[in-house]
Amino acid sequence: MKNIAVGIDIGGTNTVIGIVTENAEILAETSVSTQKYTELGDYIAVLVKSIKDLLLKAEGYNLKGIGIGAPNGNYYTGTIEKAPNLPWKGTVDLSGELKKYFDCKIVVTNDAKAATIGEMVYGGAKGMKNFVMVTLGTGLGSGIVVNGQLVYGSDGFAGEFGHVSAVENGRVCGCGRKGCLETYASATGIKRTVFELLASCNDESELRNIPFSKLTSKDIYDYAVQGDKIALKAFDYTADILGRKLADLCAVVSPEAVFIFGGLANAKELIIQATKNYLEKYIMPIYKDKVKVLPSGLLGTNIAVLGASALVM
Amino acid sequence: MKNIAVGIDIGGTNTVIGIVTENAEILAETSVSTQKYTELGDYIAVLVKSIKDLLLKAEGYNLKGIGIGAPNGNYYTGTIEKAPNLPWKGTVDLSGELKKYFDCKIVVTNDAKAATIGEMVYGGAKGMKNFVMVTLGTGLGSGIVVNGQLVYGSDGFAGEFGHVSAVENGRVCGCGRKGCLETYASATGIKRTVFELLASCNDESELRNIPFSKLTSKDIYDYAVQGDKIALKAFDYTADILGRKLADLCAVVSPEAVFIFGGLANAKELIIQATKNYLEKYIMPIYKDKVKVLPSGLLGTNIAVLGASALVM
Repeated sequence: MKNIAVGIDIGGTNTVIGIVTENAEILAETSVSTQKYTELGDYIAVLVKSIKDLLLKAEGYNLKGIGIGAPNGNYYTGTIEKAPNLPWKGTVDLSGELKKYFDCKIVVTNDAKAATIGEMVYGGAKGMKNFVMVTLGTGLGSGIVVNGQLVYGSDGFAGEFGHVSAVENGRVCGCGRKGCLETYASATGIKRTVFELLASCNDESELRNIPFSKLTSKDIYDYAVQGDKIALKAFDYTADILGRKLADLCAVVSPEAVFIFGGLANAKELIIQATKNYLEKYIMPIYKDKVKVLPSGLLGTNIAVLGASALVM
Repeated sequence: MKNIAVGIDIGGTNTVIGIVTENAEILAETSVSTQKYTELGDYIAVLVKSIKDLLLKAEGYNLKGIGIGAPNGNYYTGTIEKAPNLPWKGTVDLSGELKKYFDCKIVVTNDAKAATIGEMVYGGAKGMKNFVMVTLGTGLGSGIVVNGQLVYGSDGFAGEFGHVSAVENGRVCGCGRKGCLETYASATGIKRTVFELLASCNDESELRNIPFSKLTSKDIYDYAVQGDKIALKAFDYTADILGRKLADLCAVVSPEAVFIFGGLANAKELIIQATKNYLEKYIMPIYKDKVKVLPSGLLGTNIAVLGASALVM
């Protein structure tokens, strides 16, 4: 009997659930809203039903377990703790809740760490012992691999590169502090940058016609490609701040490569190459021309679901 | 026959050489100037002679090898590369040079990494799997332990926490850039802070009578203990900036503890406790009240020599 695993990627907006085979093939996939269910009980009920419905499509396979990537997901305890972008406050015993319904191995980790495991097992980081994964989504998630192992730290919460300080007393962050990197380098961050630039610069821009609530990072990319000055400046500022903070991270862990994932990673010249240029500008001389900056090898796939499933496979 | 190892700590000013037993007892110790020998050949000649003289005092023991901690020392290659605080430029094949004179195992690492190994084997970090060591000397050296292993990174040069950016376009650093943490948080850094404060504040201070070339961090400590306002402000600023950057480092590796070594670490209240207070002020909420800030368990010993010897023992 062939093995399958359930991979779950809990994001701030949606939760994606997939049935994954040993060959990293996604047999079936569905998604549910995360932000809609402010009561944890309601969310768990919908999640459990969705998993059971999906498993009906995988009869005849052997279920190895359920792997979950979630913001602030803790590998050591199976819980989610104080996740700023999720609707439930405090500590959520996610693996405990699911164990009431499923008699199998259940492993929780940070959503970005799940993606990092995906990159290591199936993607561009195959064979690398030291690399960093940065996911530019609603926030900035990261996974750090040292000596071939994911860095979990003493409490399971290492790898929060999105919450290093980028600007002293800068933008308000969901974590309760100010100036965290993810308030600048993320899909939300580049949108905030656009609105700062609309206020501070006089360049003509189509972006002046779009309200904050409607603008997406995809729009900013499309306008940048068309030569819109505000959009181009926003990308440049994002790459500058990301390159600068990556230079600091390289001084700490000296990775072979930095992989960029998430919607913004599709902007290859404007993010990947520009970030590499700024990284080289800011990095300490001994690391110059050593660190690759690459788009994830799994762009376009659901890397977080694949990575989450790899946790139990 | 009992085993011994030679432990060598190469600092920007002096090089300390010790003969260490398996029980971490230093049988004999000597030191030579580092900065005086601007020609590498002269330095190697003096170093070799000093080692041979010391070994005469350890007859009847079995020499296991020579362990060396040096700024930018590379564990993978046995070389020193582009060390900003050493007189020799480019790449120095230290283990190659010494192998011409000694037929034994020769291992090189960063001086701060050697101290970190000392802390792990003999000091306060015994049994810890995730911790950080920060040495506040002429510069700021660091060693990072993840999952029980020292982080060397892809090129052997990871762990340069002294060269993360602390202040944009800040003080000129020996590495060729500006604003690196070690230009603020180190014995040299606190001295630079004192002179900035003498310029920017009007507080009366005995420090106004001491020229830059004569002032030591020990003087600053002594005046601070006596209540000198400039000296106290300099310690507060140092702890603030160190606590802030440690908060970022904790977001990356989430250590159980941070150990502080070096001359400044003797200022327990003014550095250790003050840094802990600022760390808690700046740290991301999920890490609050988790990370210990402690003086090295080996203060007063030659931890770098002990650690270097442990590399080959």
